[in-house]
Amino acid sequence: MNIEQELALRTKEIDSMIARYLPREEGYQKKVIEAMNYSVLAGGKRLRPMLMQETYRLFGGKSKVIEPFMAAIEMIHTYSLVHDDLPAMDNDEYRRGKKTTHAAYGEAFGILAGDGLLNYAFETALTAFDLEPGNKNIARALKILAEKAGIYGMIGGQTADVQASGAGLDETQLDFIYRLKTGALLEASMLIGAVLAGATKNEQRLVEGAALDLGMAFQIQDDILDITSTQEVLGKPIGSDAKNEKTTYVTLYGMDQAKEEVESFSKRAVGRLEELVVKNEFLVQLMLYLIHREK
Amino acid sequence: MNIEQELALRTKEIDSMIARYLPREEGYQKKVIEAMNYSVLAGGKRLRPMLMQETYRLFGGKSKVIEPFMAAIEMIHTYSLVHDDLPAMDNDEYRRGKKTTHAAYGEAFGILAGDGLLNYAFETALTAFDLEPGNKNIARALKILAEKAGIYGMIGGQTADVQASGAGLDETQLDFIYRLKTGALLEASMLIGAVLAGATKNEQRLVEGAALDLGMAFQIQDDILDITSTQEVLGKPIGSDAKNEKTTYVTLYGMDQAKEEVESFSKRAVGRLEELVVKNEFLVQLMLYLIHREK
Repeated sequence: MNIEQELALRTKEIDSMIARYLPREEGYQKKVIEAMNYSVLAGGKRLRPMLMQETYRLFGGKSKVIEPFMAAIEMIHTYSLVHDDLPAMDNDEYRRGKKTTHAAYGEAFGILAGDGLLNYAFETALTAFDLEPGNKNIARALKILAEKAGIYGMIGGQTADVQASGAGLDETQLDFIYRLKTGALLEASMLIGAVLAGATKNEQRLVEGAALDLGMAFQIQDDILDITSTQEVLGKPIGSDAKNEKTTYVTLYGMDQAKEEVESFSKRAVGRLEELVVKNEFLVQLMLYLIHREK
Repeated sequence: MNIEQELALRTKEIDSMIARYLPREEGYQKKVIEAMNYSVLAGGKRLRPMLMQETYRLFGGKSKVIEPFMAAIEMIHTYSLVHDDLPAMDNDEYRRGKKTTHAAYGEAFGILAGDGLLNYAFETALTAFDLEPGNKNIARALKILAEKAGIYGMIGGQTADVQASGAGLDETQLDFIYRLKTGALLEASMLIGAVLAGATKNEQRLVEGAALDLGMAFQIQDDILDITSTQEVLGKPIGSDAKNEKTTYVTLYGMDQAKEEVESFSKRAVGRLEELVVKNEFLVQLMLYLIHREK
């Protein structure tokens, strides 16, 4: 089985796991739940839960306690897309070839579905206490989840990005945005996997560093694909960065250097994992695939 | 000291406690933090943290572990107002005589500040684990917070409310909305206070019931004041329910019966507290004051 087939299989497994954690579409609040589930089920590579699970396995994790966190991180990722797509933000009507949540359910329900998903992510992650009431690592995993999703993580990066729209960014600002907006949830994913599996502090540091490098490489590859790919392959219009006059790694450093940066971050990410005594070959393949992906 | 003076004093104490839990306005994400803090510091009676603290004291709670939860519930209440005020929701430009968050910071930052506050509420509540790592009640308090704020609590009520806008509601739907939209966070407040102080299951049940009755009485009083008060007293325009053709207890049952319902819910709330062996006279006075308030 090659990496693409392996990936497709695991995405499917994670899809059904996540589906079990989604709320039932019933009651007077049915419509917001429909909008939430529509958003989560709209597809995606399930990259974050997959990285979390593989890192958990890397350090010998074997229990179901990882599952609520896998579902939670995907809910948080999804809510961030739902709110990003709103008219007051990026104003996107389509994502992955499907209508965005507010386009399908109206703007009020775009806002509410996002709120609902963020809140439900914590409700879901907290069910880990039901599975293993005495597990001291759960509290730390919850803290990582909350911190990396918030103003010192993803929301912080999103803020700086919105504020900078149209304006010319310097290297430091752009790195801040990439590190937080894209990197923080990847860090949370891998770090939570490591923490719940009982990795040592040093192992946690290596994993967090690898995730950050992965996030940078992933985001720069995004900048490149927005220029070199096609709408058919990406499932969304290309050239949106240029249209929105966004500062990217390509505008700042040029295409050649951007490509070199992808290689350099990619090597560093894999290098960090290779420092570990434990090994997970699929995780390394997964990271390389995500970095060098065509869409 | 009469109840109003006592209330003003305690609101002030809670104000300074909450201020210590707010994030510092610095870094590239400074603007979202400013918008978050602006929203929280815009005033309010601090009713939810106050009820939480008094219920905690009622059952003999004496530690600082209650504080992060007090700050968290106020952050959640505040985010719900910030998102409610957005153009796609109630489209309100003023609240308590001050500009609403999106009116002051722009719509994108209204969305982001709300997201930031909801997320930061969980980050804040999770710091309770730093204060008392071995306290088993913290996990349960976190679950109550998440559940009562989410689709089976406040967001659920908000959803049903938005969906019903303009449409005629029946008694069951209206009760659902009041119970969840207003009641759920009051229940969370009092129940978390009871749980963290180590109240018995039966005590927790009585407190939760009292909070729900309080929420109903409080919300019906809101309906009444929207007709009988003035903009000067309320700090916001009256008659907004009529303008938005909202179904309320007054439109559904008439003014006289609405007033009777306030009395009946109010008596039941106090009655439940009186079933308890422990007593907190200020809590009873506080509940009665909130129910019979003029603004």
